[in-house]
Amino acid sequence: MGFKKELKNKKAFFEKEMENYIPKIEGFQKKLFEAMKYSLDAGGKRLRPILLIESCALVGGEIKDAIPFAAAIEMIHTYSLIHDDLPAMDDDDLRRGKPTNHKVFGEGLAVLAGDGLLNYAFELMILSTLKDEKNTIQYVKAMNEIAKAAGIYGMIAGQVIDLECENKIIDKKTLDFIHMNKTAAMIIGAMRAGAIIGGAKEKDLEKLTLYARNIGLGFQIVDDILDIIGEEEKLGKNIGSDVEKNKSTYPSLFGIEKSKEIAKELIEDAKDAISSFKDKGVFLQDLANYIIDREY
Amino acid sequence: MGFKKELKNKKAFFEKEMENYIPKIEGFQKKLFEAMKYSLDAGGKRLRPILLIESCALVGGEIKDAIPFAAAIEMIHTYSLIHDDLPAMDDDDLRRGKPTNHKVFGEGLAVLAGDGLLNYAFELMILSTLKDEKNTIQYVKAMNEIAKAAGIYGMIAGQVIDLECENKIIDKKTLDFIHMNKTAAMIIGAMRAGAIIGGAKEKDLEKLTLYARNIGLGFQIVDDILDIIGEEEKLGKNIGSDVEKNKSTYPSLFGIEKSKEIAKELIEDAKDAISSFKDKGVFLQDLANYIIDREY
Repeated sequence: MGFKKELKNKKAFFEKEMENYIPKIEGFQKKLFEAMKYSLDAGGKRLRPILLIESCALVGGEIKDAIPFAAAIEMIHTYSLIHDDLPAMDDDDLRRGKPTNHKVFGEGLAVLAGDGLLNYAFELMILSTLKDEKNTIQYVKAMNEIAKAAGIYGMIAGQVIDLECENKIIDKKTLDFIHMNKTAAMIIGAMRAGAIIGGAKEKDLEKLTLYARNIGLGFQIVDDILDIIGEEEKLGKNIGSDVEKNKSTYPSLFGIEKSKEIAKELIEDAKDAISSFKDKGVFLQDLANYIIDREY
Repeated sequence: MGFKKELKNKKAFFEKEMENYIPKIEGFQKKLFEAMKYSLDAGGKRLRPILLIESCALVGGEIKDAIPFAAAIEMIHTYSLIHDDLPAMDDDDLRRGKPTNHKVFGEGLAVLAGDGLLNYAFELMILSTLKDEKNTIQYVKAMNEIAKAAGIYGMIAGQVIDLECENKIIDKKTLDFIHMNKTAAMIIGAMRAGAIIGGAKEKDLEKLTLYARNIGLGFQIVDDILDIIGEEEKLGKNIGSDVEKNKSTYPSLFGIEKSKEIAKELIEDAKDAISSFKDKGVFLQDLANYIIDREY
């Protein structure tokens, strides 16, 4: 099976599983559930849950143990997009080719749908922890990885600085802080959580962490390049929106060619980090390549 | 020691302990930490953490075990106020006599400060769970109570319906749904979490749940009465703001006198629910009275 087919299968597998974790649209707060489901169903690459499940499997864990956590991390990612798109933040009308959450449901409900997804992600992880009393500590440790990654020393920190730096020329140090926190942190959190659920040894955990960091940083740079050179349909968002907002990015600081080089190096480092997994690591090797190849 | 003195001491004790859990204002994301601390320090009754700690002590638990969870529930309560005050929601300029978070820090940062507080609350609970490996399951169960109470089948559900019902006359059933979820749920969550941490037996847990439900519902009705008859300085928010927004409340549906009666009944039921705790329950008995007496 080719890589693209495998990626598509893993995505379809996760999306089918995730259905079981999306709140049923019923009751007084029906509109809230609709708003949450709207953004959860809006597609996307499902990169974080796929990586979480893959990390669990790679170290010998059972996929079924990782699934609630995979759904949780996708919910956290989705909430962050809903809030990020708000008029007070990035003020985006389109996301993945569809109107953003607040465009469809209004700003108030979009804020609450985001809050709801974040809180529900923890509810899911907690319930799944309580279901397996012999491995409680392992699950709490996995939850800790995701909470840290999503929080004020992770993703939210990145978003705050991203917001502050709109219309400002920033230096590489600040830009790297944003990339590390806004993008790489959640990919690291996903892979560490999955590996911990799978019972990873410390050494393997370190390798996967390094891989995650490097594809996370590479992924963001490629995204910023695509923002400039990509076609509107490909990304489903307004091309050049970073330029329009005067956001500093790798391509704006170093030019497109140099940025491509840096991204390539990060991807090579990512692949090196997991070379010892040999054949078992092929999917992750291919995924690293795909992050660069998906567009240029 | 009189009740008011005791309440004041418990509040001061909690606020001093909470200081240890507020993120240090440093690093790139300094402004975020400032915004979080601004609202955490804005005062308030600290009702939820005091009840959480009291429930733990009442059933024979150690107060120190409950403190991180008490800080967490106050953070969740605070985030809900920050988001609730946003222009897209209640659009309030004042909270506890001070400018609301978005008035000081801007809307974008206010959204993120709220997100940050919610996420950090879980980080605190998770870390404190990992520190005491012999009681892990107990802590995860306590976390579950708080997560449920704060979530889309609890507080957030209440906020959604509250938002939807602005400028609408609603029936008692809908209003009770709002009160139960927006206000009572978190008080129930606080007391159940505290009691679980303290090792409560199922029977005591039920009594405390009933008490929490009744003071929660009573508290909201009293708040709505105060919104009409209170003085601006007393509450530190614009009086009559519910009337201005055409919100349905107990006083608007049933009149002030009838609403006072209903609140009084709820408080009496609350006290009855915990009568078997005898002397150990005196603080909670007094607190129930205080909820009604604080103002008329």
